[in-house]
Amino acid sequence: MNLETISWQKNKIKIIDQSKLPFKLEYLYIRDIVTLYRAIRRMCIRGAPALGAAAGLGVYLGIKDFRGNNLEDFKRKVKEISHYISSSRPTARNLFWGIERVNSVILKNRSKDISNLKELIFWEALSIIKEDKKSCDRIGRYGSVFIQNNDGVLTICNAGLLATCGLGTALNVLYQAKKEGKNFKVYASETRPLLQGSRLTAWELKKNRMDFNIICDNTAGFLMQQKKVNCVIAGADRIAGNGDTANKIGTYNLAVLSRHHKIPFYIAAPFSTVDLSIKGGDGILIEERNPDEITTLLFKRKIAPNGLKVTNPAFDVTEHKLITAIITDRGIIRPPFNKNLMKISC
Amino acid sequence: MNLETISWQKNKIKIIDQSKLPFKLEYLYIRDIVTLYRAIRRMCIRGAPALGAAAGLGVYLGIKDFRGNNLEDFKRKVKEISHYISSSRPTARNLFWGIERVNSVILKNRSKDISNLKELIFWEALSIIKEDKKSCDRIGRYGSVFIQNNDGVLTICNAGLLATCGLGTALNVLYQAKKEGKNFKVYASETRPLLQGSRLTAWELKKNRMDFNIICDNTAGFLMQQKKVNCVIAGADRIAGNGDTANKIGTYNLAVLSRHHKIPFYIAAPFSTVDLSIKGGDGILIEERNPDEITTLLFKRKIAPNGLKVTNPAFDVTEHKLITAIITDRGIIRPPFNKNLMKISC
Repeated sequence: MNLETISWQKNKIKIIDQSKLPFKLEYLYIRDIVTLYRAIRRMCIRGAPALGAAAGLGVYLGIKDFRGNNLEDFKRKVKEISHYISSSRPTARNLFWGIERVNSVILKNRSKDISNLKELIFWEALSIIKEDKKSCDRIGRYGSVFIQNNDGVLTICNAGLLATCGLGTALNVLYQAKKEGKNFKVYASETRPLLQGSRLTAWELKKNRMDFNIICDNTAGFLMQQKKVNCVIAGADRIAGNGDTANKIGTYNLAVLSRHHKIPFYIAAPFSTVDLSIKGGDGILIEERNPDEITTLLFKRKIAPNGLKVTNPAFDVTEHKLITAIITDRGIIRPPFNKNLMKISC
Repeated sequence: MNLETISWQKNKIKIIDQSKLPFKLEYLYIRDIVTLYRAIRRMCIRGAPALGAAAGLGVYLGIKDFRGNNLEDFKRKVKEISHYISSSRPTARNLFWGIERVNSVILKNRSKDISNLKELIFWEALSIIKEDKKSCDRIGRYGSVFIQNNDGVLTICNAGLLATCGLGTALNVLYQAKKEGKNFKVYASETRPLLQGSRLTAWELKKNRMDFNIICDNTAGFLMQQKKVNCVIAGADRIAGNGDTANKIGTYNLAVLSRHHKIPFYIAAPFSTVDLSIKGGDGILIEERNPDEITTLLFKRKIAPNGLKVTNPAFDVTEHKLITAIITDRGIIRPPFNKNLMKISC
């Protein structure tokens, strides 16, 4: 596959519109930050690493047409735009990390003028994309050791091509294992409410000719009980300093089920998803999303009575104790995570 | 509410067509066993206790117009119809139990003629309905002791009015607790793939003015982690002699999550759901249903790429070790279930 989830083309951010998948492969060309904000909110682009790139390019999009010579005004504008983009979604670490990266350009280049800074911000944003591609490759190569012939591997949500700038995190571990000649079966949990598993992961796995079955999220325990799952591998939206990991709602269920069945549970994510400023999962803000995601299937068909109360957190936090290892672009991190994450951060 | 999920009216079986809920309250009038078979397969009627009544009335429906005086022919016809109805779905114990009940009439009344036997079968079928109503009341009264003020109670699928001939099993425990003046919050897990939670349970709970939120099945662990769930209560499709319980797919996930969070996990079911002929859950046949239930939302809107493989078991089995107590119409059964279920069977 030669598909790019996010790229910069002709002065616009070009993204695959994931709200249209798996039915249509359509691109969105984003020329202003309000459109970008909405695309992120509506999850036309999603996945922590891809959001990091969107944030970086977004800041550039917001300031590239800045007129004037006042450096302070320029910096204020960068801050304002950064703040606006940050407010699109609260949980994924990479969104903030992408913004911090492009902002750091200004801090590091105090003597440069506005025109130079614009250019540096642009190159910094592009380098996020380039680096993420490499990160995906490394995660794939490091992680594939965990996949054995004849394994059943369970995954949730989409931590693949569509969630990153490269070939994926959790899913690239599987792609890499396949390249190495291993035969195994993937179980893709459909991932209610927005069905990133049956819509996006299924679309990717099918394109990559992987051997996979879709399951309802309810079926994970059943498969483990029947000894059809040898490991679980999921992506991450934010990893706290102690290894507690926020990821798509339902990930925590899988971690508990894995522990009960003595099955290894892996997280795969670039180091940019690690947030050492947060000690544990308690500090991670969990986004609560629109009830219509649950009561109306893909916002089109009503499935529940009107006027119901709904609890719709987009993420949950898996305690580090339930995680066997974190597969990062800097290597495989084992417990104790607080010590070992700190070690590779240097 | 004065609604009857299943009744006998004007020589026909009258059922609420649950495939139309929550949008329309429509009744189906069933005048032949082929229509009944399809209604069961399509889950226009579902829920173990309601299926017991459908099976009993179904046998009567099949033989009421039997012509001829040959008793052996009559008995053969009863057997044939019983076999046909039994083959509609494999897991719920009550379906078979209902058929056995009406068949026992023939065994017990060897001297009676065909016309008498028809009548006795009819009354036996009606008595299943009457008894189930009483069973629901008893289950409600026995079980309400487990619900405390300010509790959060999680339930899955629909084990209410729509699953029984009375007010329900698991849900009637909640209705009864409310009647007793207790205030608590219900979390109704939507229950993919067919959404009996968000369609049927939500419809019932709303009619009964219960305080409830709908959640995706993925959110159960999150809520438990946040200490918002004080107990889980589910229905049952079949309970083996050792207490292993088959119920809607996803029930087992909840049982494992409950154990991890040290939350009591209750099963509520009439004793007719207990199958002492099966020692443990291994002996329970799990129905595998149509992949379209997962790839096409409520059979109408395609949500996944074409031509995928799907694993779609309709039920799972929760090991008895994960069950705190079974609330039956004969009282609350505690472990050791094999001993205590046997005791109340006499």
